[in-house]
Amino acid sequence: MQSRRCRIALLGFGTVGSAVARRLTGPDALPGFTLTYIFDRRADSKRARHPELSSAAWTTEIDEVLRSDTDVVVEAIGGIDPAAHWIETALTAGKSVVTANKQVVARDGVRLLRLAERQGRQLRFEGAVGGAMPILRAIEGLAGDRVVRVEAILNGTTNAVLSQIESTGCSIDAALADARQRGFAESDPSADLRGDDACAKLSILCASAFGLRVDPTQIAVRSCASIDASEFVQARRSNGTIRQIARAVYDRARSTLTVSVAPEYVPHTSIFARTTGPANAAVITGEYSGETSIAGVGAGGDATSVAIVSDLIAIARDRAAIVPAPHLTSHFKLLTANFLFVEAAC
Amino acid sequence: MQSRRCRIALLGFGTVGSAVARRLTGPDALPGFTLTYIFDRRADSKRARHPELSSAAWTTEIDEVLRSDTDVVVEAIGGIDPAAHWIETALTAGKSVVTANKQVVARDGVRLLRLAERQGRQLRFEGAVGGAMPILRAIEGLAGDRVVRVEAILNGTTNAVLSQIESTGCSIDAALADARQRGFAESDPSADLRGDDACAKLSILCASAFGLRVDPTQIAVRSCASIDASEFVQARRSNGTIRQIARAVYDRARSTLTVSVAPEYVPHTSIFARTTGPANAAVITGEYSGETSIAGVGAGGDATSVAIVSDLIAIARDRAAIVPAPHLTSHFKLLTANFLFVEAAC
Repeated sequence: MQSRRCRIALLGFGTVGSAVARRLTGPDALPGFTLTYIFDRRADSKRARHPELSSAAWTTEIDEVLRSDTDVVVEAIGGIDPAAHWIETALTAGKSVVTANKQVVARDGVRLLRLAERQGRQLRFEGAVGGAMPILRAIEGLAGDRVVRVEAILNGTTNAVLSQIESTGCSIDAALADARQRGFAESDPSADLRGDDACAKLSILCASAFGLRVDPTQIAVRSCASIDASEFVQARRSNGTIRQIARAVYDRARSTLTVSVAPEYVPHTSIFARTTGPANAAVITGEYSGETSIAGVGAGGDATSVAIVSDLIAIARDRAAIVPAPHLTSHFKLLTANFLFVEAAC
Repeated sequence: MQSRRCRIALLGFGTVGSAVARRLTGPDALPGFTLTYIFDRRADSKRARHPELSSAAWTTEIDEVLRSDTDVVVEAIGGIDPAAHWIETALTAGKSVVTANKQVVARDGVRLLRLAERQGRQLRFEGAVGGAMPILRAIEGLAGDRVVRVEAILNGTTNAVLSQIESTGCSIDAALADARQRGFAESDPSADLRGDDACAKLSILCASAFGLRVDPTQIAVRSCASIDASEFVQARRSNGTIRQIARAVYDRARSTLTVSVAPEYVPHTSIFARTTGPANAAVITGEYSGETSIAGVGAGGDATSVAIVSDLIAIARDRAAIVPAPHLTSHFKLLTANFLFVEAAC
């Protein structure tokens, strides 16, 4: 099955890309893979700093990668443009693609999966939701059930900030500074706190768990940016705390979906209250299997690289396999979410 | 991809088999599947009681099923004989196979996976470990990491018994009677309490997480059969409780594996203390991703049928895909487990 080595091209050599490169090279590398190309806008200066990766061809020319005999392209650039275009071009050129790009997958995932299917290639994106927490595979393992509800902490940065305010009583600015120092927060975390990141991930989960097409902008959002320590004091009086919860509840009988991303009161006994720092957690409820929960490290280069490399292994071990696009439907009514959770408890 | 319906033959119409049949038939059935054969030793009397399944051919002749044009055989008989032989015969006859039979998979899994690979067919067994808790898929999602430790509650019956003693202070016999009444325990639960069931499952996890060949009989075992309420009182004084914990710790540098199934003290703050009733839980530790935890319903026909039907969906959506056998090694030293956990804490 794995007689021929799988040739990998890496697009983007930032935190995630460099972590993937480390897993694919060196004396301790995973067997069966060859890192053939590294595309980066600053390829020259980065190549000079990484002599251990000199066996790969470093380039600033994306076309060189796409024209090559690479088997799988790992997209680790982030953002919609040009990542979405390059993923499409790579699939069109007959390469399989692994990405952790939640924005692209949330917007174009189904179209790109169909393209991969037509091309006889794979598109995998476990790292786009939940970092190293393998929630997409868990949902795949519950495909035999009818999933009716997904509740999750999907943004590690916001969770690190909220749990830091909870444990120290500090201001949100101080918590953000701390998260940045520990490497959990981007220089501009406003999109994380506002819920943009969690909305993109929840949209991907709605497709995989329910087969529903939900645009991230359709999701009811309430920002965490104005949460302060006093709200945690109130929540604690009710034996709970506050977390950014992404929730999708699907009522199949009525064909209605209620989706939201918002700061919510969660009781101390819940898995969400116990999820601290940059961790992610999810509870998936099925009609037959009840609640299945999963938790793990949700952010950072190492966690995301684990998800990407796991997808590479899945592709390498069975190159004939195509993961077909889900048959999404827009035939459901989107309900306004109820944001009374925080207030009700406090 | 799914133009042709996937023809399913069911071996065994007990708790699990009948739950699978319900998901595949009726007005609310999963699309794309046809239940063509039901093999059962008491096919005649069961057919009479299930007129809703009259479109399937009921039979007591296994050869009739194996000679048919069935695409996938679901083995829901349990036990080693004749299940192992029939799985082998089905694969040899060019059928894919789904099973939840931990004993067969623990003993013959790698050999049967290789046979499936040669035949260009699939063998899937998510239901063999963890019921509806998709732990094998979670481990697949961490394949890009180096897993160093798996700790888990893998036997729902024993967990229901232990958590019942914990909450009521009753005797183990009373807890067993209660578990039987709720449908969580077999008429003879001694193999569950002794650890046989958890050992078979842990052996499967050692193969998938570490690529190590561990015979269930090699695992150090201590029975839960003599646990009584006084031990829970002692554990509570140390802010903890007692659970049957299956543990495998792999020291790659030294090539040593320590595996055990035993009643252990677990602190109240751990995921295992919070796992009550017939639930299962696991913590998988990777070098890069740290701890990933997963929990769900671990026993019962509905939970196991979710795992089986999820495997059927995976096969139906990509019939060309073959899941290759892991390359197992026996080149490691098996260490004696340390059973001091219960005593040390109490």
